[in-house]
Amino acid sequence: MLTSARNQFKGTVSAVKFGPVNAEVDIDLGGSDKLVAVITHDSVTNLGLKAGSEVYALVKASWVILAPENGEMRFSTRNRMYGTVAKVTTGAVNSEVTLDLNGGSQLIAIVTNESVAGLGLKEVVRACALFKASSVILGVKD
Amino acid sequence: MLTSARNQFKGTVSAVKFGPVNAEVDIDLGGSDKLVAVITHDSVTNLGLKAGSEVYALVKASWVILAPENGEMRFSTRNRMYGTVAKVTTGAVNSEVTLDLNGGSQLIAIVTNESVAGLGLKEVVRACALFKASSVILGVKD
Amino acid sequence: MLTSARNQFKGTVSAVKFGPVNAEVDIDLGGSDKLVAVITHDSVTNLGLKAGSEVYALVKASWVILAPENGEMRFSTRNRMYGTVAKVTTGAVNSEVTLDLNGGSQLIAIVTNESVAGLGLKEVVRACALFKASSVILGVKD
Repeated sequence: MLTSARNQFKGTVSAVKFGPVNAEVDIDLGGSDKLVAVITHDSVTNLGLKAGSEVYALVKASWVILAPENGEMRFSTRNRMYGTVAKVTTGAVNSEVTLDLNGGSQLIAIVTNESVAGLGLKEVVRACALFKASSVILGVKD
Repeated sequence: MLTSARNQFKGTVSAVKFGPVNAEVDIDLGGSDKLVAVITHDSVTNLGLKAGSEVYALVKASWVILAPENGEMRFSTRNRMYGTVAKVTTGAVNSEVTLDLNGGSQLIAIVTNESVAGLGLKEVVRACALFKASSVILGVKD
Repeated sequence: MLTSARNQFKGTVSAVKFGPVNAEVDIDLGGSDKLVAVITHDSVTNLGLKAGSEVYALVKASWVILAPENGEMRFSTRNRMYGTVAKVTTGAVNSEVTLDLNGGSQLIAIVTNESVAGLGLKEVVRACALFKASSVILGVKD
């Protein structure tokens, strides 16, 4: 275990695009799963990131919002990952929902039990995981 | 239920102000409740947002900090929504606090039981909900 | 208690560096503990922040990721605070981990029980707390 983040996606940087302050880092997780992180120029330099770099993308489970796959909504989040519910573990207030993503990665989200019921989340149901590019933390192995 | 976010505020865009990279979207929730979201220019375009657009602002309950209404503090968060505690649901570690906002909307925050005690949060007590404009996710119905 | 945030670090602004939109505020917590917050220019003005200002930095416990102290990883987060586990309080799903930071401050993180086991977090173990500069909320007393 690298960190306490439930989602620690290992991937390869496919592109780094520099804006005036921040840089957008596109990451290929294998299969068809992709995600985007926004970090500072300094962090790109410190981590030595460039196309082809191996990187870990950390996303805490509590930072993810779940939505129906074929909802009638469009969202502002850069990251929208689609998958099938593989498991729902229910606690007193919150549930942990595991999605098998289309490209083969797994993603974990913590949502309230009320949301699990309201969205009908259970095994085999399709869902979409939303999180902002600015929520993603990147790490590299030395 | 649109998504797993406990706070899904339906509102109307009152203004979109473009900065060099991001845009600030002012949203009127009706009554006197307002909030601000910061999203990228691309997202503004993709969602077709302009003054008058109907929009949903998603804020996960765990992203909200509660403070006393008439505290002696000023904060850096763009969003500071005031209201009256309507309900406190206590779990083993965390509590879910529902605020009736001044303008008629409801807001839910997840805070620790220790904070509920420390801030004296219970029905009819006044409180302030703090969250950053960059935490807000916007959605539109197709 | 000022707010519901479990981490309310009292410190002194050591520097304010202005970027095109946001400003980076360096904060000295005493001892050797330091942290960085990124807020808007407007917030710097509204809070009257400058070198020497007394400020509170709020970081919700659920926004913190824990990692091994001497891990083989480098991360993109601006804030990396090192310390010794002082206490682990275990709930049904999550645990609250208290770190005694090197400089004398305390920091609380909420992580899953699985992470506590996976990282071997228990009293006296060394750990690193990661959180983004953009997650930090600043407050000043009037």
